[in-house]
Amino acid sequence: MVTVLAVGAHPDDIEVGCAGTLALHKRSGDKVYVLVLSKGEASGDPVVKELACKKSAELLGVDGLFFGGLQDTKIDDGIETILVIEKIIDEVKPDVVYTLTFKDTHQDHRNTAYATLSAARRCNKILMYEIPKPLKEFFPQVFVDIEKTFEVKKKVLSIFGRESESFWLAANAIEHLAVLRGFQAGVRFAEAFEVGRFILEV
Amino acid sequence: MVTVLAVGAHPDDIEVGCAGTLALHKRSGDKVYVLVLSKGEASGDPVVKELACKKSAELLGVDGLFFGGLQDTKIDDGIETILVIEKIIDEVKPDVVYTLTFKDTHQDHRNTAYATLSAARRCNKILMYEIPKPLKEFFPQVFVDIEKTFEVKKKVLSIFGRESESFWLAANAIEHLAVLRGFQAGVRFAEAFEVGRFILEV
Amino acid sequence: MVTVLAVGAHPDDIEVGCAGTLALHKRSGDKVYVLVLSKGEASGDPVVKELACKKSAELLGVDGLFFGGLQDTKIDDGIETILVIEKIIDEVKPDVVYTLTFKDTHQDHRNTAYATLSAARRCNKILMYEIPKPLKEFFPQVFVDIEKTFEVKKKVLSIFGRESESFWLAANAIEHLAVLRGFQAGVRFAEAFEVGRFILEV
Amino acid sequence: MVTVLAVGAHPDDIEVGCAGTLALHKRSGDKVYVLVLSKGEASGDPVVKELACKKSAELLGVDGLFFGGLQDTKIDDGIETILVIEKIIDEVKPDVVYTLTFKDTHQDHRNTAYATLSAARRCNKILMYEIPKPLKEFFPQVFVDIEKTFEVKKKVLSIFGRESESFWLAANAIEHLAVLRGFQAGVRFAEAFEVGRFILEV
Amino acid sequence: MVTVLAVGAHPDDIEVGCAGTLALHKRSGDKVYVLVLSKGEASGDPVVKELACKKSAELLGVDGLFFGGLQDTKIDDGIETILVIEKIIDEVKPDVVYTLTFKDTHQDHRNTAYATLSAARRCNKILMYEIPKPLKEFFPQVFVDIEKTFEVKKKVLSIFGRESESFWLAANAIEHLAVLRGFQAGVRFAEAFEVGRFILEV
Amino acid sequence: MVTVLAVGAHPDDIEVGCAGTLALHKRSGDKVYVLVLSKGEASGDPVVKELACKKSAELLGVDGLFFGGLQDTKIDDGIETILVIEKIIDEVKPDVVYTLTFKDTHQDHRNTAYATLSAARRCNKILMYEIPKPLKEFFPQVFVDIEKTFEVKKKVLSIFGRESESFWLAANAIEHLAVLRGFQAGVRFAEAFEVGRFILEV
Repeated sequence: MVTVLAVGAHPDDIEVGCAGTLALHKRSGDKVYVLVLSKGEASGDPVVKELACKKSAELLGVDGLFFGGLQDTKIDDGIETILVIEKIIDEVKPDVVYTLTFKDTHQDHRNTAYATLSAARRCNKILMYEIPKPLKEFFPQVFVDIEKTFEVKKKVLSIFGRESESFWLAANAIEHLAVLRGFQAGVRFAEAFEVGRFILEV
Repeated sequence: MVTVLAVGAHPDDIEVGCAGTLALHKRSGDKVYVLVLSKGEASGDPVVKELACKKSAELLGVDGLFFGGLQDTKIDDGIETILVIEKIIDEVKPDVVYTLTFKDTHQDHRNTAYATLSAARRCNKILMYEIPKPLKEFFPQVFVDIEKTFEVKKKVLSIFGRESESFWLAANAIEHLAVLRGFQAGVRFAEAFEVGRFILEV
Repeated sequence: MVTVLAVGAHPDDIEVGCAGTLALHKRSGDKVYVLVLSKGEASGDPVVKELACKKSAELLGVDGLFFGGLQDTKIDDGIETILVIEKIIDEVKPDVVYTLTFKDTHQDHRNTAYATLSAARRCNKILMYEIPKPLKEFFPQVFVDIEKTFEVKKKVLSIFGRESESFWLAANAIEHLAVLRGFQAGVRFAEAFEVGRFILEV
Repeated sequence: MVTVLAVGAHPDDIEVGCAGTLALHKRSGDKVYVLVLSKGEASGDPVVKELACKKSAELLGVDGLFFGGLQDTKIDDGIETILVIEKIIDEVKPDVVYTLTFKDTHQDHRNTAYATLSAARRCNKILMYEIPKPLKEFFPQVFVDIEKTFEVKKKVLSIFGRESESFWLAANAIEHLAVLRGFQAGVRFAEAFEVGRFILEV
Repeated sequence: MVTVLAVGAHPDDIEVGCAGTLALHKRSGDKVYVLVLSKGEASGDPVVKELACKKSAELLGVDGLFFGGLQDTKIDDGIETILVIEKIIDEVKPDVVYTLTFKDTHQDHRNTAYATLSAARRCNKILMYEIPKPLKEFFPQVFVDIEKTFEVKKKVLSIFGRESESFWLAANAIEHLAVLRGFQAGVRFAEAFEVGRFILEV
Repeated sequence: MVTVLAVGAHPDDIEVGCAGTLALHKRSGDKVYVLVLSKGEASGDPVVKELACKKSAELLGVDGLFFGGLQDTKIDDGIETILVIEKIIDEVKPDVVYTLTFKDTHQDHRNTAYATLSAARRCNKILMYEIPKPLKEFFPQVFVDIEKTFEVKKKVLSIFGRESESFWLAANAIEHLAVLRGFQAGVRFAEAFEVGRFILEV
């Protein structure tokens, strides 16, 4: 049994990037924690979004959902963000941390990636998940076969999809991305990650 | 009206990477030429593959299909390959050249990309198409909306798909890739390219 | 006819990077808008610089000159900068956006590039122009032949050149850069761009 | 229990790059195979080197030592090299493949890396080990704690070290590299790898 | 005789990255100045750290030790940081500037690197030193043989090492790094640098 | 006094990339050797080109001109090329080696760069010069002020320029490049280099 922590900048980042993998962790009996740094108030109702996060967490079976209280669109890579993430890391002591990648045109995403790398500098495994748009040179290195949890991923995406048409389009793209990453990994559906750091047990 | 040349290392490379774009060129009244450097004899019957290329060319309406006569799996980036491509460039005088990208783990693909860049050094536009596997850091920069020709692309892919189960899987992945690239470009289906060189008319 | 928007961090950025291309757009009957995020008050008189921008805009024939009101040397890549750019994009609805590149050692330039990519995420064409110093790994991909407008570019550069000897040196370098990029593109004078995103019509 | 295959271009590559990890696999009861593509005849007596490989294999407890029969300094990235590696992969069916990285100034090393990526395209895990000189931008991502097998690594390095003073110097550097990589991983001694592809079981 | 300036974000950065090179400059009769941007108050007693900097400066024989007065963990790449560095550059007029590299996961380090590149834009030589952890893709290009001053480097590191166990570990790693870089340079001990800009006298 | 060796793939590569720097070395009393790997027979009369090399060597005052006897357009990065370069290195024992960069679309240039890095693995300084076309991401790091030898550079370029109109255009571009690099370095004319490896004396 391992403990994992997924970090996202906004509600729905984690669902987009690694919901299938998190659901798989739960199937394997792992502990799963989720940290959402802001409530996405710059592009919608934060109360609705918070509720969506909770429903998603319930569906995924996560063991703890945390909000970072940072301001949407103003997340930086400095000490404030780092401390928010460090606090949760100290609390849940994750073996694996999933976070955004810094190859992203959204400033909150880039900064979340940098801040997580700093905050998780003593964690053994840091994997960076992808967002289908607007990625820049994301290089898929690590793949997780999510065939068994693909339906759950679609379900949690649909929670957020109800909110807006643009997200509905994104959710659709994410399903196609899962097939593409699956093809690259030799399975039906996959999620892909870049490696921040990975201590491999042999 | 422009003239375009698509270069592939093996039968099916061009269909995978830019069939939708080529079909679109034909709809716009452009001249389209295709150069296939080898007949893919290392992984199947070259006679069958040649026939597939011809059917595909017919369906796409290409104005000329050339074979480079190079040896499958032994295409290098040297003068021999460059001369084969230069000869066709001198003949058809393309305004746009589509070729493979050198961010690819297949040696024939890398070498085709390098050789095309050398051979087409006087062409105004060189765009490099992608293969869904095993890409390495492909960076989608230029997108073509292929909604109008997506059905044709599926049809020409199915010609090659009949050959092998593994290609059938690839063809499936390519369709999903088209949706993903479409999402990134803000359309339903797209093909994506890296830029070799692009002289923009203003 | 297309509509284009050029974004610069300081007065003279746009003239240095893409004045020839903008003048060409005007010759072709396109609409050209210019957004200058700050008035460059950290290194000279902002009133003089504003006047220079206006003279330059007049010479280039631009259809609208906007100032972003941001503080010179303190332009960041966050929501404030993004909103300033988004507002103009919503107003002029550009088909093409020209902006700085993030491969630049000036923090305002890097941040302008990132903020434009975010603000222009629904625009079809984003091209990033170059500054001759202090570039870092700028990779010329897209070239525009500016032979017909090179004299205009020199004229608008000279407006800013009157200000300072260091800019006069830069202006001189820019002319040599135009010949070099022209050589690479196979023409007499050219401006070069990196690609942010480019939806190609076929 | 997993099966692993380590690929090197010359005798001693594997010992330098991943002997500690291979010894650890044996301690865990895994099957370990080793493929040495050439006998290093360009810089020493191939008979002596073959013997050193055998002694090393014995010390590490490897289950099978293969020689690829390729010519030292003339290993290319084409089909000949790929087939040599594919043959062993078909035979031992490895779960993990260790190989050189293509960020290396030695042509045999670069080509071995490319050829392994092609040959192992259906393997779930490909990790690329490092050579302390002349690396170019090697990016340590995956670390294995080799504290328990560091003495064995030193022993197998000493087999090759007897041969030449320059190798003795390299062996010394490798020990220091192990401490450095250990520090980066938070352990005493480590080996570091780049990721070719890694299917992660969750 | 040349004048050099070393810039660090925190007490100990300079000792870790280039103490051997600075000591060598002193042996050659050069002028050496040191600028420490913050007093590292976020992870220890700034008074103790300031004292350590002074002892280190004395041991190295530096001609002037400056503190930038910036806030630990909040150093950004903007004008405030740039001006602090520019002020010292204007005062000591360095021929060579040593600074951190921007390939670093610590935000203060990245920002110090960017700010130094801006502030030192008229200096002839800018070299970027490395930190053994958590570097990201540091590419050693320029090497200085520090065999003659390695003992001094160890001594100044030990000043900071007394403070904390984690730094003691780092200091140990740094010694091993010196051997590794020495091996890559063909000497016993070396420090390695990336190049910001280097005007070479011929 | 130092000894330098410049390596080019074809007649004129060295003149284009580093003639100003070589002439400067001669002014400083250094020994200068030149190695031209092929006689450029694929694009002109090798006898004429050999003569041009000799005239250029005379004008530059080089102490020894060597031809590598390799075949134009077929220079690879393997042992044959490496041995040709090693032989001259063993003979002249250069302190500095100037060679092409591997960021080049010409296969001979890329391979010359790789082979030189291998052959010169024990040399203290390897600098890679640039060709104005078709460079790919050349990153100017090291600059040499060639104001004093710019006239000589133009003269030796004109020797080759007599041969062909296309080279005449290139020679023109090279002069503009020298101004641009000079501007970046803060001087009138400069040549720029990437760093292969550079042991810095302090």
